[in-house]
Amino acid sequence: MSDKTDIGLLEGLATTRAIRRYRNEPIPSEDLAKILFSATRAPTGSNRQSFRFLTLQDSPPAVAAKSVLGESFRAGWAAKKTADGYSGGTGADADSPKSRMARTMQQFVDNFEQTPVVVLACVRERHGSIMDGASIYPACQNLLLSARALGYGGVLTGWHGPVETELRELLQIPDEYLIGATIPLGIPEGNHGPVRRRPLNELVYDGQWGTTPDWAQDPEGTRFTSAGPPPAH
Amino acid sequence: MSDKTDIGLLEGLATTRAIRRYRNEPIPSEDLAKILFSATRAPTGSNRQSFRFLTLQDSPPAVAAKSVLGESFRAGWAAKKTADGYSGGTGADADSPKSRMARTMQQFVDNFEQTPVVVLACVRERHGSIMDGASIYPACQNLLLSARALGYGGVLTGWHGPVETELRELLQIPDEYLIGATIPLGIPEGNHGPVRRRPLNELVYDGQWGTTPDWAQDPEGTRFTSAGPPPAH
Repeated sequence: MSDKTDIGLLEGLATTRAIRRYRNEPIPSEDLAKILFSATRAPTGSNRQSFRFLTLQDSPPAVAAKSVLGESFRAGWAAKKTADGYSGGTGADADSPKSRMARTMQQFVDNFEQTPVVVLACVRERHGSIMDGASIYPACQNLLLSARALGYGGVLTGWHGPVETELRELLQIPDEYLIGATIPLGIPEGNHGPVRRRPLNELVYDGQWGTTPDWAQDPEGTRFTSAGPPPAH
Repeated sequence: MSDKTDIGLLEGLATTRAIRRYRNEPIPSEDLAKILFSATRAPTGSNRQSFRFLTLQDSPPAVAAKSVLGESFRAGWAAKKTADGYSGGTGADADSPKSRMARTMQQFVDNFEQTPVVVLACVRERHGSIMDGASIYPACQNLLLSARALGYGGVLTGWHGPVETELRELLQIPDEYLIGATIPLGIPEGNHGPVRRRPLNELVYDGQWGTTPDWAQDPEGTRFTSAGPPPAH
């Protein structure tokens, strides 16, 4: 799949979707190296490069870790499905976006163990503030963007949370590293394409909180989502 | 400066440097809108889009906020310069990378108030874990990458920390939002170009913590930095 796409930077930023369905094909090592190279080009606090990326493929500890994660992802989705009311409202209509999302999520968690590569993005930062994330999530985003450039896709998740203790023991992750994200990766079954968000003028203020600038306009033809915060917020 | 570069996605990821010296020129609103559009294409937890971007330009509250931030950045750099021993060792040699970095930092903080645009990246997440950052730092990275595509540059910083209370009052930032980053933006005085990191085989493990895979190789010709963790870590 190497370098098969020659996508521009701005287009890549606008069209990197969360990908949760993967073909049953491995990611060649040379592509995985490129993806991680891109990830590690991201900034970290004082360029300490306090990030570490642990890839889980087919070795015995990796298979065991994927299994532990799979259980957690299935439990996480089951709880979220109920909490967020995926079966109610338009969820009763099998063709609604909500129903399609629910089916994708179910397939994603049911097949978690078959995910070609799972990356655990870890970081040695212990300020105990949101700033800890500043040394790992930019790299996670680079990783997803690079995957997209090379014909792959993935999604940033946090469902390692409930099984973190077990994972740490299994994979010998030292105490001083936080697990920032679990990122499954593979060749997409579906397609990348324009992501949908709320209109820009609901997300951008100028000069003072709540002051929406005239210039905060999406490019012509942008399609929006109704997900996210209410307009009045 | 709009769309003047047509850089590829992978190249963009590998060459987006922290930019701290800016020409004394504004960023046209249409470019700022494009940069923020790219930022908001990043993922957030459950696509809640819990991020908000507050731009500081030339309005009275923005100027006041830049001034508060400038003081904090100067104090932050003064403390860091001492703590990290910028004057010692190779810092005595005016041509050393350390001395050049120190001069750039000094110029950056001394001229902070003249920064064309300062973006405060805020997020409404209160899990109290590193995962809060997962809904804002991917967007910060998209913002920096988009700026680079359009001929601008910036840097992700956390020196709003010591003056956060004052800033919140001045800009009326609600309690439920965290300030994740302060990102100055402008037209670079210098150039973007390949970023330097530790070798990939110090940052990537496969299957188990500490197991370096053979495939974790940087592209040929990659230049490294000696900053960051010692090789043995």
